[in-house]
Amino acid sequence: MREGQHLRIPGPTDVPPSVLRAMSRPMMNHRGPEFAALSASVNAGLKSILGPAEMDILTLTCSGTGVMEAAVANLVSPGDKVLVASSGVFGERFVEILKAYGAVVDVISSAPGEPVSPKEVAKKIEADNKLDYKAVFATHNETSTGVTNDVKAMAATLEDHPALFVVDAVSSFGALELDPAWGIDVVISGSQKALMCPPGLGIIALNKDAWSAVDAAKSPRFYFDLRSWRKYAEKGQTPVTPAVSIMYALDEALRLINEEGVKNVFARHKRIGNMVRSGVKSLGLELFAKKGASDIVTSVNVPYSIDVKTLLGIARERYNVIFAGGQKDLAGKIFRIGHVGHVGDEDILLALTVLETSLSECGFTK
Amino acid sequence: MREGQHLRIPGPTDVPPSVLRAMSRPMMNHRGPEFAALSASVNAGLKSILGPAEMDILTLTCSGTGVMEAAVANLVSPGDKVLVASSGVFGERFVEILKAYGAVVDVISSAPGEPVSPKEVAKKIEADNKLDYKAVFATHNETSTGVTNDVKAMAATLEDHPALFVVDAVSSFGALELDPAWGIDVVISGSQKALMCPPGLGIIALNKDAWSAVDAAKSPRFYFDLRSWRKYAEKGQTPVTPAVSIMYALDEALRLINEEGVKNVFARHKRIGNMVRSGVKSLGLELFAKKGASDIVTSVNVPYSIDVKTLLGIARERYNVIFAGGQKDLAGKIFRIGHVGHVGDEDILLALTVLETSLSECGFTK
Repeated sequence: MREGQHLRIPGPTDVPPSVLRAMSRPMMNHRGPEFAALSASVNAGLKSILGPAEMDILTLTCSGTGVMEAAVANLVSPGDKVLVASSGVFGERFVEILKAYGAVVDVISSAPGEPVSPKEVAKKIEADNKLDYKAVFATHNETSTGVTNDVKAMAATLEDHPALFVVDAVSSFGALELDPAWGIDVVISGSQKALMCPPGLGIIALNKDAWSAVDAAKSPRFYFDLRSWRKYAEKGQTPVTPAVSIMYALDEALRLINEEGVKNVFARHKRIGNMVRSGVKSLGLELFAKKGASDIVTSVNVPYSIDVKTLLGIARERYNVIFAGGQKDLAGKIFRIGHVGHVGDEDILLALTVLETSLSECGFTK
Repeated sequence: MREGQHLRIPGPTDVPPSVLRAMSRPMMNHRGPEFAALSASVNAGLKSILGPAEMDILTLTCSGTGVMEAAVANLVSPGDKVLVASSGVFGERFVEILKAYGAVVDVISSAPGEPVSPKEVAKKIEADNKLDYKAVFATHNETSTGVTNDVKAMAATLEDHPALFVVDAVSSFGALELDPAWGIDVVISGSQKALMCPPGLGIIALNKDAWSAVDAAKSPRFYFDLRSWRKYAEKGQTPVTPAVSIMYALDEALRLINEEGVKNVFARHKRIGNMVRSGVKSLGLELFAKKGASDIVTSVNVPYSIDVKTLLGIARERYNVIFAGGQKDLAGKIFRIGHVGHVGDEDILLALTVLETSLSECGFTK
């Protein structure tokens, strides 16, 4: 049996061999000049994806959810009014975290399999004539439904409103175009999706307006207190022991991304997104996302005649290809094909062929 | 120049070659049976160190400080009265986190370089005749001062008091004897010290009494909400994407620890602790810890005639041996030699020789 799975899930994604090898570098002192140099190199790599926006980028030891919580704990105080634009599980996650921290949460939920309408956001913003919203939270790419939200259009609705705009780009950062200059104050990401690294690092970028809110927020926080992460970052350190090995990995992965060219990486994901959707449709399957279909994860309706567990089981056990099922309400109704990060055309050819064969073994006919 | 530093700091510690190699295994799906098997194997390894105590062990993606915060956020509600037995920076860290979460904190601080007196703890506990203390927090091994606290004696003072006893064993777990049966309700650790792994995983073990407190606590928490970690652990998963590669590492490191035998590992640390203290004294240096000197980190007074930065700089730049300076108030006054985890007699011979040579280059004479 071949070692390693074909990870056609939205994350963690396949880690390139040179990135895996980078992790076998010996451990280093995290308070010495060597770590400061590593940290500076990682930061430069992340900035090359983020673009020229003036933001501080911090790399925390946690998953993507951890940096979502860091954003909430540092920007929102109990009783603050906020708006969440939710198109699935990860939008709901913002709602849950915000409620845990005592925020008063307004939610715009999209129809299942659709992005949130920027017009709906605009309506809420216009109705907030007392300017009560402290922050608006949105998911760039909602992996639970395979939908990409138009965060550029959402940001535009906030042009005359002081609310901060916080974007969860956990799966999209480094795969889909995202420009803070659109009007985004906080960008959140993680190591294990487009950045082709093992999970374990959460990334958060904040501009000056966001920092003002951080200084004023009253929620309890220590591990996720971004003020101490910023203070230590100034000397090339972290307030707590960082996940050094994953920093080695991230440094190498960012080198690969810059070698290919950030724009080329975006173009590759776009091309592969089209390829997956065409392939899925040509197999006689129906896309779940009717609008805003994501270029990095494709959601597919489970055909009536098929038991999805059987289908994904065949792909996994016989061919070592791992597709993802649906989450929560969508369990049994959709399955998902991840195509983010270290993925080439040949990976998609294999995935589609395995999907066709597995469907046929389940008795599916077009 | 040799690749890799001789890490004579209290952490992150040297990672054995087979543990480094384990991290180059391909990424896997964190929601599949393979991860559940890995997780079960890691848990069994951790239990072999923890002993027969009936505790749930959870492995979180964060540093040791993260699990310290998890303990606070899950056990303490705003306004709760707690006691911290502090002998240095990491005892103070509990105080800071507890205050951030709104606890009313009583502190017993030891004299610098000494352990906390269990008699002082007993006095505080006896004086608390209203049984107000919800929890008592202590540091097993205080790496900032090189002191080991007698948590067994502290636990005994709580025999007739309902307060939970929470022990930070971040540096000691897997190196120094620690038995929850002494009366410890919560044990906290991390991957990057005695467990010989890269940083990135925090470990927390809780007994039944601790879980009752978790269910009742009112502090905001999401990422560190141990209820969801426990729920997912039941199916061999984690609520957020786990640091899979460091789990590979931890599994291999635990295999090495069990191959050597947990008791033998404890005995090796004890022997090496003695060896370091004898060696340091024979060089004409003075130990900082007058009582309770730790077997895993040795603190040394900086001789009057020596500039410690110069001393540590020579060891680092010329010999690639990294000693640690003093933290906070102790900066410039002590330096520290770490000897925890993947360390053998030959590493100590080298460290002492380099120390002798570097001292001599600084002009130090006995």
